[in-house]
Amino acid sequence: MKSGRQAGRAPALIHQAIPSQAVAEFVMSSGYDGTIVDLQHGEVGLDAAVAMLRAIPRDRNEYAYARVGSLDPAPILRLLDSGARGIIAPTIETADQARALVEATKYPPLGGRSLGPSRPSLYAGDDYVAAGNSAVSAIIQIETARGRENAEEIFAVDGLDSVYLGPADLAVSYGLPGRGDWTEGPVYDAVLELSSMAHAAGLTFGLYCASPAYARDLIAAGIADYVGLGIDLVLLTRTAREAIESLRSTS
Amino acid sequence: MKSGRQAGRAPALIHQAIPSQAVAEFVMSSGYDGTIVDLQHGEVGLDAAVAMLRAIPRDRNEYAYARVGSLDPAPILRLLDSGARGIIAPTIETADQARALVEATKYPPLGGRSLGPSRPSLYAGDDYVAAGNSAVSAIIQIETARGRENAEEIFAVDGLDSVYLGPADLAVSYGLPGRGDWTEGPVYDAVLELSSMAHAAGLTFGLYCASPAYARDLIAAGIADYVGLGIDLVLLTRTAREAIESLRSTS
Amino acid sequence: MKSGRQAGRAPALIHQAIPSQAVAEFVMSSGYDGTIVDLQHGEVGLDAAVAMLRAIPRDRNEYAYARVGSLDPAPILRLLDSGARGIIAPTIETADQARALVEATKYPPLGGRSLGPSRPSLYAGDDYVAAGNSAVSAIIQIETARGRENAEEIFAVDGLDSVYLGPADLAVSYGLPGRGDWTEGPVYDAVLELSSMAHAAGLTFGLYCASPAYARDLIAAGIADYVGLGIDLVLLTRTAREAIESLRSTS
Amino acid sequence: MKSGRQAGRAPALIHQAIPSQAVAEFVMSSGYDGTIVDLQHGEVGLDAAVAMLRAIPRDRNEYAYARVGSLDPAPILRLLDSGARGIIAPTIETADQARALVEATKYPPLGGRSLGPSRPSLYAGDDYVAAGNSAVSAIIQIETARGRENAEEIFAVDGLDSVYLGPADLAVSYGLPGRGDWTEGPVYDAVLELSSMAHAAGLTFGLYCASPAYARDLIAAGIADYVGLGIDLVLLTRTAREAIESLRSTS
Amino acid sequence: MKSGRQAGRAPALIHQAIPSQAVAEFVMSSGYDGTIVDLQHGEVGLDAAVAMLRAIPRDRNEYAYARVGSLDPAPILRLLDSGARGIIAPTIETADQARALVEATKYPPLGGRSLGPSRPSLYAGDDYVAAGNSAVSAIIQIETARGRENAEEIFAVDGLDSVYLGPADLAVSYGLPGRGDWTEGPVYDAVLELSSMAHAAGLTFGLYCASPAYARDLIAAGIADYVGLGIDLVLLTRTAREAIESLRSTS
Amino acid sequence: MKSGRQAGRAPALIHQAIPSQAVAEFVMSSGYDGTIVDLQHGEVGLDAAVAMLRAIPRDRNEYAYARVGSLDPAPILRLLDSGARGIIAPTIETADQARALVEATKYPPLGGRSLGPSRPSLYAGDDYVAAGNSAVSAIIQIETARGRENAEEIFAVDGLDSVYLGPADLAVSYGLPGRGDWTEGPVYDAVLELSSMAHAAGLTFGLYCASPAYARDLIAAGIADYVGLGIDLVLLTRTAREAIESLRSTS
Ligand SMILES: [Mg+2]
Ligand SMILES: [Mg+2]
Ligand SMILES: [Mg+2]
Ligand SMILES: [Mg+2]
Ligand SMILES: [Mg+2]
Ligand SMILES: [Mg+2]
Repeated sequence: MKSGRQAGRAPALIHQAIPSQAVAEFVMSSGYDGTIVDLQHGEVGLDAAVAMLRAIPRDRNEYAYARVGSLDPAPILRLLDSGARGIIAPTIETADQARALVEATKYPPLGGRSLGPSRPSLYAGDDYVAAGNSAVSAIIQIETARGRENAEEIFAVDGLDSVYLGPADLAVSYGLPGRGDWTEGPVYDAVLELSSMAHAAGLTFGLYCASPAYARDLIAAGIADYVGLGIDLVLLTRTAREAIESLRSTS
Repeated sequence: MKSGRQAGRAPALIHQAIPSQAVAEFVMSSGYDGTIVDLQHGEVGLDAAVAMLRAIPRDRNEYAYARVGSLDPAPILRLLDSGARGIIAPTIETADQARALVEATKYPPLGGRSLGPSRPSLYAGDDYVAAGNSAVSAIIQIETARGRENAEEIFAVDGLDSVYLGPADLAVSYGLPGRGDWTEGPVYDAVLELSSMAHAAGLTFGLYCASPAYARDLIAAGIADYVGLGIDLVLLTRTAREAIESLRSTS
Repeated sequence: MKSGRQAGRAPALIHQAIPSQAVAEFVMSSGYDGTIVDLQHGEVGLDAAVAMLRAIPRDRNEYAYARVGSLDPAPILRLLDSGARGIIAPTIETADQARALVEATKYPPLGGRSLGPSRPSLYAGDDYVAAGNSAVSAIIQIETARGRENAEEIFAVDGLDSVYLGPADLAVSYGLPGRGDWTEGPVYDAVLELSSMAHAAGLTFGLYCASPAYARDLIAAGIADYVGLGIDLVLLTRTAREAIESLRSTS
Repeated sequence: MKSGRQAGRAPALIHQAIPSQAVAEFVMSSGYDGTIVDLQHGEVGLDAAVAMLRAIPRDRNEYAYARVGSLDPAPILRLLDSGARGIIAPTIETADQARALVEATKYPPLGGRSLGPSRPSLYAGDDYVAAGNSAVSAIIQIETARGRENAEEIFAVDGLDSVYLGPADLAVSYGLPGRGDWTEGPVYDAVLELSSMAHAAGLTFGLYCASPAYARDLIAAGIADYVGLGIDLVLLTRTAREAIESLRSTS
Repeated sequence: MKSGRQAGRAPALIHQAIPSQAVAEFVMSSGYDGTIVDLQHGEVGLDAAVAMLRAIPRDRNEYAYARVGSLDPAPILRLLDSGARGIIAPTIETADQARALVEATKYPPLGGRSLGPSRPSLYAGDDYVAAGNSAVSAIIQIETARGRENAEEIFAVDGLDSVYLGPADLAVSYGLPGRGDWTEGPVYDAVLELSSMAHAAGLTFGLYCASPAYARDLIAAGIADYVGLGIDLVLLTRTAREAIESLRSTS
Repeated sequence: MKSGRQAGRAPALIHQAIPSQAVAEFVMSSGYDGTIVDLQHGEVGLDAAVAMLRAIPRDRNEYAYARVGSLDPAPILRLLDSGARGIIAPTIETADQARALVEATKYPPLGGRSLGPSRPSLYAGDDYVAAGNSAVSAIIQIETARGRENAEEIFAVDGLDSVYLGPADLAVSYGLPGRGDWTEGPVYDAVLELSSMAHAAGLTFGLYCASPAYARDLIAAGIADYVGLGIDLVLLTRTAREAIESLRSTS
């Protein structure tokens, strides 16, 4: 992701709110390029998250990301030590918050990540610290009006890699219903604006999409470099409802 | 289930192979009547299973079942103490095995379940032991040729409540591919035969179905009194594949 | 609690320092109105806490509270997503800290709680965000001299629901022994003063009580709108000591 | 316990059905001589049980017992490796079952316990295997009419150390209510008879008692060499009920 | 291992008694060919074991084995579903026990392993059941005099793949000290005899070795096809002792 | 440690990055004086850490320390309540950070630690709060150039007990390779300087050492009052590599 699209394909990632190592394996085998292990929402605690991250083979983990619930550096460090290739920090609204993310995710001189006897020490390469910094993405989530207002100075923080837009929370912050896939109004405007600003700042841009069609359009238009597509718990509930409705139908 | 169909509706249960309390809640809200927490296959360990069972509200847990991996009475007892309303024992092939299930799931004189400071002690009612026995179903799974051959003497075991047919394992035991929803051949014959035998023995009959249509037909024909319909991990993987295929489609 | 006493009865809550789903069920059946799952003191980690919260049936969880160990929003969000109906933040000493609690517990525009695929999405109702805010209480704990000194500006923070006084820590901050149930001195003065101030600010007022008699008096006097009454580990140890002393007595 | 009463005092043990290391510490500090970590009933899984056993200091663990849910040797071995000083096997009804317990708990030649890099290897002493066998008690629980009928041949099994009577399950097996502290009828007769038979066979005898007075009488009469006295979850619920009733009383 | 040595090199496996995913990764990177996750001795519970197995990349897991504590099929099935490539059953003494292992580890017609939505379903290949059977080794541990006496009929059980000798327990069963690396006496005789018998029966032969030199000799002599070499907890304790002794030395 | 060396011996502590209660016991038996349970790096989560701390007997826990991943007071409080005798805070760079550590670890008036029904309440003594403060060490880790620059004002913070230098991170902050045991250059200069400054401020001084010889020299020179010596995961990997290299050697 750091070097942009690969072979013209924008990566698609699933949001994992269920604490399951098998789900990580199975969705990967189903065609997804990666996963966002979600420690902010859902049932995935820190111990489950690190086990899930370790279960993803190292040759498949380019997009093994974790979303944290706050900027506390302690869980961020353990997620990185367990193989997370990117940390998504929710609700970034100030440059200071973005700097705190870089501080926690990058080794010096970019940040203040500490050395330890962890998975990165298994990676080949001359320069352990440089290798670690190039292997890991610092991703800020913009999902409030305030975050959007401060985007320019936030995006200028050194060491950031990507911007991830959360449309549902952004909508709520504008007093709109908390849903995604907007094609007009302030959330859609923000998608266009923040994508341009991110690209201008040398950052990739992604966002959460509820439907494949919406994601496809934004990718085709060069707006999104990658997408979050679906939440495991939501996908499962929807397909369960379809199964039971089909069973109860009289046809 | 012990008293047959309710209001003409055959219960549909999901197989839960993912260790998630939210999945239990969400699939219940999607229309399923119950869940089979699966300790035989998947990622659900005993500690996760008991938490999942406790998460299902007592007024919704009529079909909160657990499938165990063997006849070891220790996990069966803890599952019952945590609120399981039925225990499904896989691969029953002899009457002795069926008796072991009854021994573990029913209080004396039917079986040998032991008293303890558990959820059942919260149920109202004069006769704690009788209440416990009427609240819990002992369900044997027939899923091998040998189990089918011994069905008559197995079904005669006192204290059993239901027969659950596993079509994939049964197919493998006949040298056929390991799949469900058979409409001919030995597995389908077994469905018809075992349903009749179960009903004749005063037991209810259910089976695992992969598709809603197949389940609907067996219910309509009076063959199945309830069905297992889908496995959470399989449902999720399928819908994930559909999402990613839709994203990658060129239309 | 948000709307005051129900039918003239002030709710009584137990402090749960033991990681047990059964304890939650059993103390509820013993007459308590609710529980304060304690992540600050004791053995209850975040994974245990969310399982305990999910184990409390939704129709009984009006006073299913959790006390956190700090203002880190990450665990607060997961507790709320798992069904906590109130968050108690310990040792609040400034208005900024109180605002941080509201930020973490309330949806916009009151706070900055983020949307997710969680238990609240199962609640009926037109306005998900408004429903979430009315379902959850933000409760600050005043338990230091400094917190008392800043009470007026703390209580004025928009979005707060209640004040909970911790008498033992407050006593220590005055150089007194760390115990509760004070009937004179600075802790007792603080109880009277902070109850009045809370009521004047439109907030409910509660406090931890060691003995039922003390709690009863404060409720009868209109000082306490609800009480924490006892800690499971302390209650259990005391009754264990009584049992063993009775055994060893010579009478 | 193996060598009888110490200084004229019969040990009293609490039943621990709650997965808490603090409860183990606190009840020990309250005067109890030991604990029966219960894996048969309650919420204590194997991982919790081994942590609880390791939390009990080695110089206080003479009566750190575990009750298992079945005779599966796998959990028994891990409990012993984690410091359990005795294994209580429930519902023993045949000499073969008693032999299986000895097989799992004692090193050769008495049994078939396997060597491993566990806590016993930390004990001083010349003969590791002999030291292990003298440190660990094999305790059978008699709690059915059938177990009582076979008591003579059960008690003759080589390698057993003690008999523990379960009055509630025994009562149920006689068609009586599932409670303890019987002073007449078949359960009381069994207490007298099995105590005599155990002593004649060179085994110690204990039983579960609900009340201190009942336990005191049986100890004073030389019938019980040790007692189980109370279950943590039951003690806690009772004292919680007393607290809330006191609060709600009008006096 | 099923097809013998690879490129002339006998695999060496570490015994893992510590519940750590990182240890599995790190020892693999240190040159070991595989690991025996030990559920019989040590601290590794079932939930930890399945996480450890999933953490081993699929392209490195040829010797990702698990040793169980008994022949209960329930944990065996979950270990296999989580990616274990071999199951080691301790203390096999009869052909019936060996058959029970095959029954639990192999799909029909060799055994009775049940189908489920697990990791094997991710493997490519036409015949799922045949692929599963060829991917998994059934390994019996001979470690008692009785097991050795019955070796001929045990080794003749259809579906077995390998014999693993446990020298310490075998020594204890002969009344000798519980250690390995014997070069004379009944344990050494058993090594020679059982290796020959295993090879004659078409099974591979391995054993636990404490020292590299001993292992090297048995491999060079064609006696051992693979070795267990060291236990993580023992290796760690020894190197810790060396470190502290070096610190305290006066040189 | 608070009162300096005991009997002329500087304590040596192991870094525990593996979540194992047995490792704590075994390394203690191997001669180490204590352990630093590491929640910053490695696999030890909060639940594992508190179980490990409780597993260390109270009469052996003088140097049962925990290193946290951040200054969030919530985990610090639970570690202390579980028996941690010292908290090591990584990467302290300002006096404010040091004050936050004291605030979280010491009772009033030194800090703001809150009372709770925890292990400290089991300690004997008249003054619970004073006893708690004397039992627990607040240890700051200096491991960046910035931390060193601010050392004077950091060390002056009231309530601190000790300074622990992290040489690898300190080296990285100077643009040097991330290793320890420096004998020249800025890291070595910092060792000398900070030791002197710590002693002048009435604080003890320790540092992480990779080799026993380096540790021995610094202790002999009066520079180090105690040392961290080795990380369990690193020690284990090294000894595993030696074992496998010995096996593969042709000699
Ligand atoms: Mg969001
Ligand atoms: Mg099946
Ligand atoms: Mg307090
Ligand atoms: Mg019983
Ligand atoms: Mg062995
Ligand atoms: Mg460091």
